[in-house]
Amino acid sequence: MDANPATGECPGAVYLGDGRCRFLVWAPLAGQVNVRIVSPRERILNLKRQKRGYHRGVFEDIEPGSLYFYLLDKEKERPDPASRHQPEGVHGPSRVVDTGAYAWTDQCWPGPSRRDLALYELHVGTFTPEGTFDAVTAQLDELKALGINTLEIMPVAQFPGSRNWGYDGVYPYAVQHSYGGPEGLQRLVNACHGKGLAVILDVVYNHLGPEGNYLADFGPYFTNRYTGPWGAAVNFDGPGSDEVRRFFIQNALYWLTGFHLDGFRVDAVHAIKDFSARPFLEELNSAVHRRGERLGKRVYMLAESDLNDPRVILPPVMGGYGFDAQWTDDFHHALHTLLTGERDGYYHDFGGLRHLARAFGRGYVYTGQYSEYRQRRHGRSPRICPARQFVVFAQNHDQVGNRACGERLAALTSFDGLKLAACTVILSPFVPLIFMGEEYGETAPFQYFTSHPDPRLAAAVSKGRRQEFAAFGWEGAVPDPQDENTFLRSRLNYGLRSRHPNRVLYALYRQLLQLRRELPALADPDRENMEVLGLEPENVLFIRRWSGA
Amino acid sequence: MDANPATGECPGAVYLGDGRCRFLVWAPLAGQVNVRIVSPRERILNLKRQKRGYHRGVFEDIEPGSLYFYLLDKEKERPDPASRHQPEGVHGPSRVVDTGAYAWTDQCWPGPSRRDLALYELHVGTFTPEGTFDAVTAQLDELKALGINTLEIMPVAQFPGSRNWGYDGVYPYAVQHSYGGPEGLQRLVNACHGKGLAVILDVVYNHLGPEGNYLADFGPYFTNRYTGPWGAAVNFDGPGSDEVRRFFIQNALYWLTGFHLDGFRVDAVHAIKDFSARPFLEELNSAVHRRGERLGKRVYMLAESDLNDPRVILPPVMGGYGFDAQWTDDFHHALHTLLTGERDGYYHDFGGLRHLARAFGRGYVYTGQYSEYRQRRHGRSPRICPARQFVVFAQNHDQVGNRACGERLAALTSFDGLKLAACTVILSPFVPLIFMGEEYGETAPFQYFTSHPDPRLAAAVSKGRRQEFAAFGWEGAVPDPQDENTFLRSRLNYGLRSRHPNRVLYALYRQLLQLRRELPALADPDRENMEVLGLEPENVLFIRRWSGA
Repeated sequence: MDANPATGECPGAVYLGDGRCRFLVWAPLAGQVNVRIVSPRERILNLKRQKRGYHRGVFEDIEPGSLYFYLLDKEKERPDPASRHQPEGVHGPSRVVDTGAYAWTDQCWPGPSRRDLALYELHVGTFTPEGTFDAVTAQLDELKALGINTLEIMPVAQFPGSRNWGYDGVYPYAVQHSYGGPEGLQRLVNACHGKGLAVILDVVYNHLGPEGNYLADFGPYFTNRYTGPWGAAVNFDGPGSDEVRRFFIQNALYWLTGFHLDGFRVDAVHAIKDFSARPFLEELNSAVHRRGERLGKRVYMLAESDLNDPRVILPPVMGGYGFDAQWTDDFHHALHTLLTGERDGYYHDFGGLRHLARAFGRGYVYTGQYSEYRQRRHGRSPRICPARQFVVFAQNHDQVGNRACGERLAALTSFDGLKLAACTVILSPFVPLIFMGEEYGETAPFQYFTSHPDPRLAAAVSKGRRQEFAAFGWEGAVPDPQDENTFLRSRLNYGLRSRHPNRVLYALYRQLLQLRRELPALADPDRENMEVLGLEPENVLFIRRWSGA
Repeated sequence: MDANPATGECPGAVYLGDGRCRFLVWAPLAGQVNVRIVSPRERILNLKRQKRGYHRGVFEDIEPGSLYFYLLDKEKERPDPASRHQPEGVHGPSRVVDTGAYAWTDQCWPGPSRRDLALYELHVGTFTPEGTFDAVTAQLDELKALGINTLEIMPVAQFPGSRNWGYDGVYPYAVQHSYGGPEGLQRLVNACHGKGLAVILDVVYNHLGPEGNYLADFGPYFTNRYTGPWGAAVNFDGPGSDEVRRFFIQNALYWLTGFHLDGFRVDAVHAIKDFSARPFLEELNSAVHRRGERLGKRVYMLAESDLNDPRVILPPVMGGYGFDAQWTDDFHHALHTLLTGERDGYYHDFGGLRHLARAFGRGYVYTGQYSEYRQRRHGRSPRICPARQFVVFAQNHDQVGNRACGERLAALTSFDGLKLAACTVILSPFVPLIFMGEEYGETAPFQYFTSHPDPRLAAAVSKGRRQEFAAFGWEGAVPDPQDENTFLRSRLNYGLRSRHPNRVLYALYRQLLQLRRELPALADPDRENMEVLGLEPENVLFIRRWSGA
């Protein structure tokens, strides 16, 4: 990316073997950066200032497991922005990790097939009672039997405390210590590949969490030229933005190379404010796909986008960012409103059978029409984008968890409604995504939970959540995000799978996913081979799909 | 654009003939809007609230020349945001204008030829001692003889006071009263067309001036989601943005239809913050070109862009905004630094002969390289964009006037330097732009001048200008923008043309423009028929152009 030798290297502490370790940090605001080793024995190391605000040094006698801080201008002691592991949480020291030490056994894994993906979204903390990567591993046979082929793991970057959805992460390179740290994630990915399951990771590049976020002490990672829903926007197009981009692009490459991940779900790309001629997202996709080629495997780039803008998934030659696919909220909203009759908030723009028919025909519902909710026209036709560029779902962590009480669809519609939802999603030509537990009608809610150690922030989060829903006219109680019970309530009751009527639903999901794989008409992603008709008065959606001529 | 009948209409007071007048204003923040006619006789009229916050009414007995205010919820009395004329300035009443009354004689005018443009940038207030449209008209034969074929008129939208560059305009539909008002502009355009000169108008859609800007009382014209260099950004993608867009798009159509303008130079498109799937700028270009087709004439859309992003000039099918051309600052900076040796501020990124050679070869100099000034990589290659999509210049109002003392190039380089500049610009395959007075080496500066009636703002502007240059380390005096002498100093001394050595330069400009028209090798805009070689040590730029095989 640049002639500067330092910048082709990955930031953070990279263990080079034989007790040698390279430290590289972008800290243009610091005249001098030292590494303070705090364990196993105290040492202070001097980094050398490089071009463009990098500080670098290679040292002997540093073994994996060593704990350290950076010392900025001998004043501020801070964890490493590119820390690989924060064993004592977001405020504690960073740990040197030998990412290359793991003995992988997935050499023949080719990466996910873009044509036949079936995604399963999973939150490590609540998927099992243990809340760890290893506990997920124990369930892989079951997931494989369900018929999905790709796990989409909610963010695992180190967040404050031990309970969080993951979107408050502040160390993009560190794997949450309470999930099992970096070695735990490596074991999980290796096990998945052994079973023929791909793993894509949810990464958050549009903001960092509010606690333990020390990046602004190092350099202009943030900008006040744009305001985002989560505070200061990440600086993707201002002075210093090349290095900010590198920090995140190297992050994706780190996951690919060191953890054998198969791709990413990039969170909220609409919150990435970037007016540059070469957008960050395009650069990210290009770098990730290039690395995939070098590694000899397919990688999959999935965007969460609220823009209804085909630019997200178009190729760069057509002015696009080059994502392989995007989450399609419109499809969800069209389906959800029909099943529940809800019309509040953004559901106001949906509710007719024509909306679902349109989602089937085009991917988006809003392709330039006026949206009452947004009070402006919204979207643009993605006509030329194939069906496999749209990921659809009847539920996901946001659509469930952003409700005041986190009710799943099972609490909002009939059992028949759940079956209908499954058919609509899985028998569509789009890529289906199942939110963990959906497949057997899980009854536990998925509520918003946090565990901020900072008491002031903890109080603010609890209060903010109450006020947010009060503003929407919500009159019931709102679970306190900081209360451990909110987290515990959100855990799956995996045993439900074998009870009645849950096992009927579970069998249906298995059957549908099997049909999708095996019936040529259902496996065919070509929307040309599909007829869609929404009969609004009769409330009937007629879909005909075929394969071949 | 919409099924709402009101919104196909132009906002403002539209005189329908026979004493009938239609008022239409977008004021979603007002429950009720009245028109208060203040002259020739007091009346209060009730507008009817329409969908999406429009208020509308058609009334009898209202003759052109009537003066009025809008009354918002019977509380606030405000001029019309779409006022056609503010005869008493930005705080006074708006005037009903019969735009259709002018007797045009340009029926056979086909519009400008995109292939052979030569632009002349002109500020009405300082071009002549009178500072009016009619006084410009008296000089048209001279301009025609020079060899340019298109006037680019600096903004004429009503601004505070009588002296301003035009970028503090606050009534996009009103023609500055001190220039001669709407009828004056119509006379000038008609006269230009009669002489075979096209007229493009500089329009400012990225911000409004600080004084007399009452739009926020009417509706969400502005947003605080983005911060711009000139305060609150215009709301092009938030709630209500459809109507904000319409306000500006109808403005362009108003100029086209009512004033026979031949196109626009759209100011600072990089300050238009818009993340929508269908960007405002694309919509604007599409609407303007469509109207041009309906009017049976060519129209020309020119962007000022700081982005070095070919998206600005690419067609929509390639993800572009569809401008016909853009101003190319890089070319200017490359040329200016060679001629003057200056390296301050953004000139830091230029100064080598290779920069000018690169500008010749590509249009931009920065196509993705690291910019020391911007502290990030900048730009992207516009490889496939033809040369005629780039407007180049050795001077313009910004490059001259944004200097502390507004020195023209004539004060910064030798006479031979001026000749070299003329050759470089005019003999290039790009579209040349000449800044008024440049053609004879005008010695008057072009300084930053304002005439804010609001004393607090006046003081702030004077102080701000001093501080701005103090921050850059400028130690000399900075002319006071509010001082009338600053304006008077900036007037052209047109008589210089006939003196020595100015007339030598003037003759050269005429000759070069004639060669450009007549020599096939120079008229050929194909960059394939050009060789460029920058010999840095020898300080020689070698350019070979040819035509045919």
